[in-house]
Amino acid sequence: MTKPEPGIACPVPASRYDRIVLGHGGGGQLGGDLLRDVFLPALGNDVLSRLEDQATVRWPGGRLAFTTDAFVVRPIFFPGGDIGKIAVNGTVNDLVVGGATPLYLSAAFILEEGLPVADLKRIVASMREACRAAGVTLVTGDTKVVDKGKGDQIFIATSGVGVVPDGVSLSIAAARPGDAVLVSGSIGDHGMAVLSLREGVEFETVLESDTAPLGDLAQALLRAAPGTRLMRDPTRGGLASTLHELAQASRVGVVLHESRIPVRMEVRAACEMLGFDPLYVANEGKLVAVVPPAEAEDALAALRAHPLGRSAAWIGDVLPESPTPVVLRSRIGGERSVPLLSGSQLPRIC
Amino acid sequence: MTKPEPGIACPVPASRYDRIVLGHGGGGQLGGDLLRDVFLPALGNDVLSRLEDQATVRWPGGRLAFTTDAFVVRPIFFPGGDIGKIAVNGTVNDLVVGGATPLYLSAAFILEEGLPVADLKRIVASMREACRAAGVTLVTGDTKVVDKGKGDQIFIATSGVGVVPDGVSLSIAAARPGDAVLVSGSIGDHGMAVLSLREGVEFETVLESDTAPLGDLAQALLRAAPGTRLMRDPTRGGLASTLHELAQASRVGVVLHESRIPVRMEVRAACEMLGFDPLYVANEGKLVAVVPPAEAEDALAALRAHPLGRSAAWIGDVLPESPTPVVLRSRIGGERSVPLLSGSQLPRIC
Repeated sequence: MTKPEPGIACPVPASRYDRIVLGHGGGGQLGGDLLRDVFLPALGNDVLSRLEDQATVRWPGGRLAFTTDAFVVRPIFFPGGDIGKIAVNGTVNDLVVGGATPLYLSAAFILEEGLPVADLKRIVASMREACRAAGVTLVTGDTKVVDKGKGDQIFIATSGVGVVPDGVSLSIAAARPGDAVLVSGSIGDHGMAVLSLREGVEFETVLESDTAPLGDLAQALLRAAPGTRLMRDPTRGGLASTLHELAQASRVGVVLHESRIPVRMEVRAACEMLGFDPLYVANEGKLVAVVPPAEAEDALAALRAHPLGRSAAWIGDVLPESPTPVVLRSRIGGERSVPLLSGSQLPRIC
Repeated sequence: MTKPEPGIACPVPASRYDRIVLGHGGGGQLGGDLLRDVFLPALGNDVLSRLEDQATVRWPGGRLAFTTDAFVVRPIFFPGGDIGKIAVNGTVNDLVVGGATPLYLSAAFILEEGLPVADLKRIVASMREACRAAGVTLVTGDTKVVDKGKGDQIFIATSGVGVVPDGVSLSIAAARPGDAVLVSGSIGDHGMAVLSLREGVEFETVLESDTAPLGDLAQALLRAAPGTRLMRDPTRGGLASTLHELAQASRVGVVLHESRIPVRMEVRAACEMLGFDPLYVANEGKLVAVVPPAEAEDALAALRAHPLGRSAAWIGDVLPESPTPVVLRSRIGGERSVPLLSGSQLPRIC
């Protein structure tokens, strides 16, 4: 047997690289270095560390919930979080709003050549912490690298699986006239935190993203209001877009009571200064729930008893189907339509 | 109740857009148009069409297999396939090589502003066909749009879940000295098809990607050789990188017999012209299997009896662990090390 041929595959210590190069996305040694030096130290667990092409895990029975989201937020670090934290929480919350218990996550990274490895390490450390907080395990992943100028630092696509307990049956199509519309707290925090940073606007108070895992809060709600029709997390497009989605799917209308919608003072100020309507601004740690009227007070009390739901409010009611699906009743009694926006107020907010 | 306010949310027919705009990634009407006009017509099914934030599906019991991959191949269309087809087949095959039956897929799209909608439609149509061919259902998805110059037309991250039958236990760490190394057909087809297109090199024969779902082939192999130690699909990094992975994980060496490795003549010619070694070139429809020697002939016969395995070959043998983990025995009996490349010969090949 001959000796290895030096020069062809001269091993390069990963520490020589403080920026991502295209070779980190190849099937060779640099990719392995990235796995060993960055991903496994932060995210390693019995399943992930097996390095199979797929994770195989025990399954407790019940129905499977499965979701995916791509994250392209800019900037990648912001007060209250970063792209890694919202990539975990966003996918966790998409499972949670279906009534599922989130169990396992996957993460696919698309890195731009030149990304500082220190930034990547910070992001995966943040993902580890977010997984811990949400009680999920990241069990499989993938990394690709694109040429400089063909991406934007880092994109992350996370997927999640969870189990839906028997008897839970929530649906975006289940709202009925008379139901109460609840929100678990102030709206617009995430979007305005990211946007004010992007626009270089400074306020006396730092605006912080509300990104958080909503599993416990949702379970508390379901225990208090077992008749809950549906839950949603109003991310991009904000509360208004979520209400339009449920109005369309359930063939109902929604009236919002402006005075009851919780908006933090500094978020309201930022919205006014930058010309945004908080109804359309993204949230990453809020729950919208539609519950039968008889369970509304119990649901509200359960939300308010949870640290993530202290400012929960009964913000609206479900009406029969209408040509203006979402209307806002103002403090002085007037009504205006809350239209579905054509595009997005805020690109790259998550 | 007031009338809708025209001008704020004037509905815009999706047909007015033949290119992706940032608003297609928002939570508003344009995003809904894209879903209704592009994704649901191609990919719609009972689960996906519910438009919940997560797919909830019946689960047949057994262990869950879960995998994810990001696809950034350039160009996005190539002979034999496109980014959509490899996004489906690649994830299906990552489940298959674990012995799983693939069931459900998710897809997260990151679109660059300006992508022709016609290209997106062609890609999702190709995904639909690939799902049909592989017997899987795409049940959940997400779309984000990034500014022009911050992406590269389209990236797709697919995840997949499948069920692993009781009794199946394959592992990259399970190869043992004496085992046979089989490959299901010619190597390097996908990589050279993409690369020759990218480099503008023309050959008399069109080089075609081998992208294909490997579920049936893998099941045939497992029936014929129930003692199979492991299967892998040698994608980026090619056969050589796959063999290094298994050598490292199983703490073994591998000897390859050069004369038995199937390489199509036109792929060999392209490799020589462009300076590549087919051992490192990506495949998207090939299976590498390590089987106990007593089952090797049966395994080979089963592979050859399948349309995707007609050129299957017994290309190597597992040796005890060695400082040169992978060696190639040439036609004339000499041996040389097949090193692990530091980076990637071929960036953005999948």
